[in-house]
Amino acid sequence: MRFQGGYSISDSAIIGRNVRIGRNTIIHANVEIGDNSIICENCIIGEPENESYYNDSYVNPTTVIGANSLIRSGSIIYSGSLFGEYFTTGNMVSIREKSVFGKNCVVGTQSDIQGDVVFGDYCRLNSHVQISRKCEFGNFVFIYPFVIFTNDPHPPSSLLIGVRVKDFSQIAAGTVVLPGVTIGKHSVVGANSLVNKNVNDFELHAGNPAVKICKVNYIWSKENKRPHYPWPYNFDRGLPWEGKNFDEWLKTDEGQQYV
Amino acid sequence: MRFQGGYSISDSAIIGRNVRIGRNTIIHANVEIGDNSIICENCIIGEPENESYYNDSYVNPTTVIGANSLIRSGSIIYSGSLFGEYFTTGNMVSIREKSVFGKNCVVGTQSDIQGDVVFGDYCRLNSHVQISRKCEFGNFVFIYPFVIFTNDPHPPSSLLIGVRVKDFSQIAAGTVVLPGVTIGKHSVVGANSLVNKNVNDFELHAGNPAVKICKVNYIWSKENKRPHYPWPYNFDRGLPWEGKNFDEWLKTDEGQQYV
Amino acid sequence: MRFQGGYSISDSAIIGRNVRIGRNTIIHANVEIGDNSIICENCIIGEPENESYYNDSYVNPTTVIGANSLIRSGSIIYSGSLFGEYFTTGNMVSIREKSVFGKNCVVGTQSDIQGDVVFGDYCRLNSHVQISRKCEFGNFVFIYPFVIFTNDPHPPSSLLIGVRVKDFSQIAAGTVVLPGVTIGKHSVVGANSLVNKNVNDFELHAGNPAVKICKVNYIWSKENKRPHYPWPYNFDRGLPWEGKNFDEWLKTDEGQQYV
Repeated sequence: MRFQGGYSISDSAIIGRNVRIGRNTIIHANVEIGDNSIICENCIIGEPENESYYNDSYVNPTTVIGANSLIRSGSIIYSGSLFGEYFTTGNMVSIREKSVFGKNCVVGTQSDIQGDVVFGDYCRLNSHVQISRKCEFGNFVFIYPFVIFTNDPHPPSSLLIGVRVKDFSQIAAGTVVLPGVTIGKHSVVGANSLVNKNVNDFELHAGNPAVKICKVNYIWSKENKRPHYPWPYNFDRGLPWEGKNFDEWLKTDEGQQYV
Repeated sequence: MRFQGGYSISDSAIIGRNVRIGRNTIIHANVEIGDNSIICENCIIGEPENESYYNDSYVNPTTVIGANSLIRSGSIIYSGSLFGEYFTTGNMVSIREKSVFGKNCVVGTQSDIQGDVVFGDYCRLNSHVQISRKCEFGNFVFIYPFVIFTNDPHPPSSLLIGVRVKDFSQIAAGTVVLPGVTIGKHSVVGANSLVNKNVNDFELHAGNPAVKICKVNYIWSKENKRPHYPWPYNFDRGLPWEGKNFDEWLKTDEGQQYV
Repeated sequence: MRFQGGYSISDSAIIGRNVRIGRNTIIHANVEIGDNSIICENCIIGEPENESYYNDSYVNPTTVIGANSLIRSGSIIYSGSLFGEYFTTGNMVSIREKSVFGKNCVVGTQSDIQGDVVFGDYCRLNSHVQISRKCEFGNFVFIYPFVIFTNDPHPPSSLLIGVRVKDFSQIAAGTVVLPGVTIGKHSVVGANSLVNKNVNDFELHAGNPAVKICKVNYIWSKENKRPHYPWPYNFDRGLPWEGKNFDEWLKTDEGQQYV
């Protein structure tokens, strides 16, 4: 059995059944952690906002971490965020206040979520991803390392215009997406691109600046010499249609939620 | 009241009035922390240089953190650096030895300052910024996420030539600036650029490699349909001309320091 | 003398002579740390794999850190990795399971090694480098900040094809290398490039996408006006031919290991 003490938990935190908490981890006020979750070592959960340093009557907003979550070591999650069940992080992630994630989302090592963002279900962020405030993501959006979603069209300004990414889209490593861009569903953006205009559904864009290359069904698999996209027909690991036909799954009650 | 013990402070550290220090934080020898500063959890301040491991008569250089500073959790600051008042960091920043920052500077989450750099006043670095040794920055320089300032013109070599950035310039997300480049005052560099030649005052450069696009006053605000740059006429949050006319402020004693 | 308690060491860890361990650091089961090594503060060494949370009979794989290593503060190293002597990290690195590094390697601050990778001897990774699984590196490979080595040719898929980089190559800051690419020996890749095809031995490639620019011996030193590459003739700091003639060193028993 791992994790035997050495942590600090606020009296007002609500800790579910069978939750395990690592050494040196701090759980702040008004944090709720769902059953069977694991919070590893050196984490800070429910970090209070700046106001807490100056206002003695500060009340820490509620932070909810869903059941069966895994928060890896060194991660810092601010108060006022909500995470669905099976939320997973890599090491040393930073997630600011008022972020909302659906169920089964992953945030990779050293990613920086700046707060006030919305993610659907089953989104996967790789390492070193940065999400600026006001960005919105659908379901099954996968983001690869060092991708940056920006929000200020002419910095510095007070006009924050987030990026919007729709269901099933894939944003490859090192890409920068400019403020206000909409990336359609089932689209793909190539690595190290600069995306300064909208990407339509089912399109591949790439380059600096990014341009439309083709429809995604022109991208062939290197494995089996047929179209790899739309990818849900060819990849299902950890996804709700795992071991099933994607089209059949879409017709189920669960699949209908995402149509 | 937050922060009640669990930290470790060297006997030779000088801690100002009303300073608060978080759990698991370590304050090393010869650190001076100004009044009203907050050092959050899991931080290391005044980390000794490598020599300390091998030399029993090692004396840790003085590290000064100005009054009213806020060092967020998980940050590591080496000894021998100087920070002006109102210095603020995000989470998990790393700042190596002999760095000098003026007053009211911000270093964002997971940024990496490699030491031996100079910043003026009111500089703001967003997350995941990397500053190599020997780089120099003026006042009011804002740097956005994942910008890299390099210093070795043909790596590996022993010839380190830093980048120089002048007052009021803005470097957008994901840009790499090559060694020896000078970026003039009030200039703007677009996102995901590769800057391999100098940028004159009041110019916008962008692209890979970056080229001159136009004078900055050709960039119009998306909010009010007039030129957004020079930006101090259109943005003042947290800046000394907040609520004032920028030109009038420039004529004050405070403004004259920056002319 | 630094480091006097406050750490946690598993009973099954094997700690060499004259090893120093910082405050708040956790050494997990079956970790072996060579003589004279230094593990700084807030580190986690031998972090167990996910299975450990669910399987009470889990046995943590052996993790070996060679003699004379220096693991800087906040770093997290998973179990099942092997590091040669004189291994050095920056602050807050994350290294996943089954990584293998030769001797005298450096992994810079906030770099993310995703596991199942192989490095030769004397490799140096700067800050914020990301290495995906299945990538392989020779000896004397230097990688600069924010370089990303990817492995999935059409994400998401189950086909992981790593990058291969041969001896003495230099990959400059901000570059993304696509899956399956081979980068030849003594080659150079310019900053902020997108490398989507192979780089031959002794070639400079740069751009987005990267193209061949010239043979590396056309790159002249800014210091002494003669070819800087192949670089071992012009740079030797911390390398086994330091203070010697590189060609003469190659003929020694040590040099012959790398021919």
